[in-house]
Amino acid sequence: MTALDRGEMRDREEGSAFEPKFGADGLATCVTLDASRGDVLMVAHMNEAALRATLATGVLHYWSRSRGALWRKGDTSGQTQTLVEMRVDCDQDAFLAFVNVGCDGGACHTGRRSCFYRRVERENGEIRLVEIEASKPRVATALG
Amino acid sequence: MTALDRGEMRDREEGSAFEPKFGADGLATCVTLDASRGDVLMVAHMNEAALRATLATGVLHYWSRSRGALWRKGDTSGQTQTLVEMRVDCDQDAFLAFVNVGCDGGACHTGRRSCFYRRVERENGEIRLVEIEASKPRVATALG
Repeated sequence: MTALDRGEMRDREEGSAFEPKFGADGLATCVTLDASRGDVLMVAHMNEAALRATLATGVLHYWSRSRGALWRKGDTSGQTQTLVEMRVDCDQDAFLAFVNVGCDGGACHTGRRSCFYRRVERENGEIRLVEIEASKPRVATALG
Repeated sequence: MTALDRGEMRDREEGSAFEPKFGADGLATCVTLDASRGDVLMVAHMNEAALRATLATGVLHYWSRSRGALWRKGDTSGQTQTLVEMRVDCDQDAFLAFVNVGCDGGACHTGRRSCFYRRVERENGEIRLVEIEASKPRVATALG
């Protein structure tokens, strides 16, 4: 790493300039948390357009890798996420979004509140998943 | 999506089999939280070897993209992360790791406790970062 690289890294880490860094695929990671409960609802990706749209409108936008499209969360499910606070990490390639959720407060397309509804357990050398939030019947069938 | 694809997706989402999914770059996202306080300390990446080593040893291992190497967090800083609970998301490509942290309890190489020490603020159409956790002098100079 050159002195210039180190200077740039220091500016990015210690400065007040917002210089989001996207990967080779154009994406950065967004961890979305319930603003009132503080727990993680989901992890998704943002390209620059999704990040800009989120900050401009105060409603969470993501980039759907499976659909290859910009995605305003809640458009089909009603589970719209209103931004309360956004934080960025040291190297500005990951974001925390604290949100209020519309509709039933859920975020996962399986019908659960959080996408992290299973615990990874190791028992007698075997790894398996244990459900910690049960699914529930849900009328909507479309993703997100 | 074929019926077979849908069946596989359903198994991955609703089953108890641990089938972690890594991206084209061989990586999955890990969000690491302080087990006692519940807040996010850092976001990093795991390849399959890092994930297996984490589950086998109970100490968090990551894949360092900048160094291109497996990385047992804390080896140089002392900020070892002991796994308390791991959760996986619906499509099994992101993990939450709840950890106890050794040394001073911090996780960020800048000397702060959390990597998310800045809030993104929008004021008069300008976006800037506001520090919410100040840096502190630190003896260790090496990353992680």
